[in-house]
Amino acid sequence: MLKPLGDRVIVTVDKEEEKTVGGIVLANNAKEKPQTAEVVAVGDGLVADNGTKLPMSIKKGDKILFDKYAGSTVKYEDNEYLILHEKDVMAIVD
Amino acid sequence: MLKPLGDRVIVTVDKEEEKTVGGIVLANNAKEKPQTAEVVAVGDGLVADNGTKLPMSIKKGDKILFDKYAGSTVKYEDNEYLILHEKDVMAIVD
Amino acid sequence: MLKPLGDRVIVTVDKEEEKTVGGIVLANNAKEKPQTAEVVAVGDGLVADNGTKLPMSIKKGDKILFDKYAGSTVKYEDNEYLILHEKDVMAIVD
Amino acid sequence: MLKPLGDRVIVTVDKEEEKTVGGIVLANNAKEKPQTAEVVAVGDGLVADNGTKLPMSIKKGDKILFDKYAGSTVKYEDNEYLILHEKDVMAIVD
Amino acid sequence: MLKPLGDRVIVTVDKEEEKTVGGIVLANNAKEKPQTAEVVAVGDGLVADNGTKLPMSIKKGDKILFDKYAGSTVKYEDNEYLILHEKDVMAIVD
Amino acid sequence: MLKPLGDRVIVTVDKEEEKTVGGIVLANNAKEKPQTAEVVAVGDGLVADNGTKLPMSIKKGDKILFDKYAGSTVKYEDNEYLILHEKDVMAIVD
Amino acid sequence: MLKPLGDRVIVTVDKEEEKTVGGIVLANNAKEKPQTAEVVAVGDGLVADNGTKLPMSIKKGDKILFDKYAGSTVKYEDNEYLILHEKDVMAIVD
Repeated sequence: MLKPLGDRVIVTVDKEEEKTVGGIVLANNAKEKPQTAEVVAVGDGLVADNGTKLPMSIKKGDKILFDKYAGSTVKYEDNEYLILHEKDVMAIVD
Repeated sequence: MLKPLGDRVIVTVDKEEEKTVGGIVLANNAKEKPQTAEVVAVGDGLVADNGTKLPMSIKKGDKILFDKYAGSTVKYEDNEYLILHEKDVMAIVD
Repeated sequence: MLKPLGDRVIVTVDKEEEKTVGGIVLANNAKEKPQTAEVVAVGDGLVADNGTKLPMSIKKGDKILFDKYAGSTVKYEDNEYLILHEKDVMAIVD
Repeated sequence: MLKPLGDRVIVTVDKEEEKTVGGIVLANNAKEKPQTAEVVAVGDGLVADNGTKLPMSIKKGDKILFDKYAGSTVKYEDNEYLILHEKDVMAIVD
Repeated sequence: MLKPLGDRVIVTVDKEEEKTVGGIVLANNAKEKPQTAEVVAVGDGLVADNGTKLPMSIKKGDKILFDKYAGSTVKYEDNEYLILHEKDVMAIVD
Repeated sequence: MLKPLGDRVIVTVDKEEEKTVGGIVLANNAKEKPQTAEVVAVGDGLVADNGTKLPMSIKKGDKILFDKYAGSTVKYEDNEYLILHEKDVMAIVD
Repeated sequence: MLKPLGDRVIVTVDKEEEKTVGGIVLANNAKEKPQTAEVVAVGDGLVADNGTKLPMSIKKGDKILFDKYAGSTVKYEDNEYLILHEKDVMAIVD
């Protein structure tokens, strides 16, 4: 299991649904790569200079919209994850 | 539904009115692309280092003027939205 | 009406007086473009990290001298305005 | 013995397992160089401006996932170590 | 009258004395352009994040030595002024 | 005697042991230049914004491991020293 | 007299002693230009955001070792001075 540190969240990026026309798989436009993901683990939050722990606004299981140029991809036990800082999560999808 | 995080607001950018001359659609000057939008969702505000939540000055339904080089465009359920940080909203249009 | 956010002010830039010699309009030197403007609207001021609202030193009606490379030009209801951060206002003209 | 200062941790990077096909060692893809390591020493934590010592979230013996472009490699008594700042440790592997 | 904002000071730069040899005006070395000026107006000082107004160390009438690459030149009522931030004033000349 | 200011330490860098093969001195690989040094003088520590003096974690006589691209070399009374900020000292060698 | 502002110090840089061989003046290596100076005037210290004045660790008459790429050279009443920020003074020479 991976436990993110600080204000990091670990997510699994949603797979693009293949668009098919009469059974033919169509390549997607690179500009429309998915930006939604599911949160699988959440850090404890940043510790501010005065020792206050700043709480996270995201929890495990949340579906999120993230900034597509953010995060680091890691491979762990054959799964691919994206590790993001909370500030790069733009919105929660309800 | 999209719930923005931190000091973000989600807006729908106002459409340019087409200028027509005798029914002919005229291309607009790129420099005059619309900079007004309507706010559809507002984050809870940034949390300062001492734990204070800084309130937002913008609310759902506000019409805003935004910095034209700011924000990220996202597509969600076939609608296009712009996600901005509050600091990139220049003014509220009353 | 435009209501600026944070420490922004909205101003109308003073027009250059045309210099004429015997009725001929003379082009001005680009280096001397006007740097004075009249304030038409003022934001509520920045909110500091501890929640304190920092008051503005500029008020509606002030004539100001501004940094000529600062600000964003916006068009609203056929008027052109410049939106500046207070830190880019160098002096008040009494 | 090496005692890291501030928020640094000293780790030994996990060796890549060689992939062999019928006994032939295969070169790994540079993009998949190992990003896991074992923590051999931990600093006392940063001291904040108000004199508060910020505690470390990592302890000796932890297995960690680190940002692959971070850290300084040092050689000490014929062993190779990587010295990282805590902020470059992305997650603890349980 | 110009009233500088924040930690700004408005100064009039000292004129270079022309060096003459037998009545011939000699061009000065660009590297030796004057760096002294007289303060004609002083701002109220910066307001710190906690609302404290930081007092200015410079007052009207002071003769100052300034960093030669700092400041903005402005023209106002046919006089030329230099507007500097207090941090760009290196010393007071007694 | 040199007394470092702030969070600086003055060190003497350990000499590389020459590697010889049958009496021939071998040039070392530039990448392996020594990164250990002995501390000969220590500053009083930085003064934080609230006036707190932040204590140093390094003392005279410590053997340290330092970041090889950090510091300024100075010559004083025919000895060569390296002056480092404490943040560029990575570890103490026990 | 020059009175430095903030955390500045005004120094006179030590002259390089000319090296002569049999009366011939030898050019010094540019890399070894002197880095020691004598302090002739000291500012009152920086004022922190909370209004605290941070005291200076350097006093008039101190001999200092300074960072050779720091400071501004000024000419005043035919003498040449170097004006440095305290942070660019590396050590006091006792």
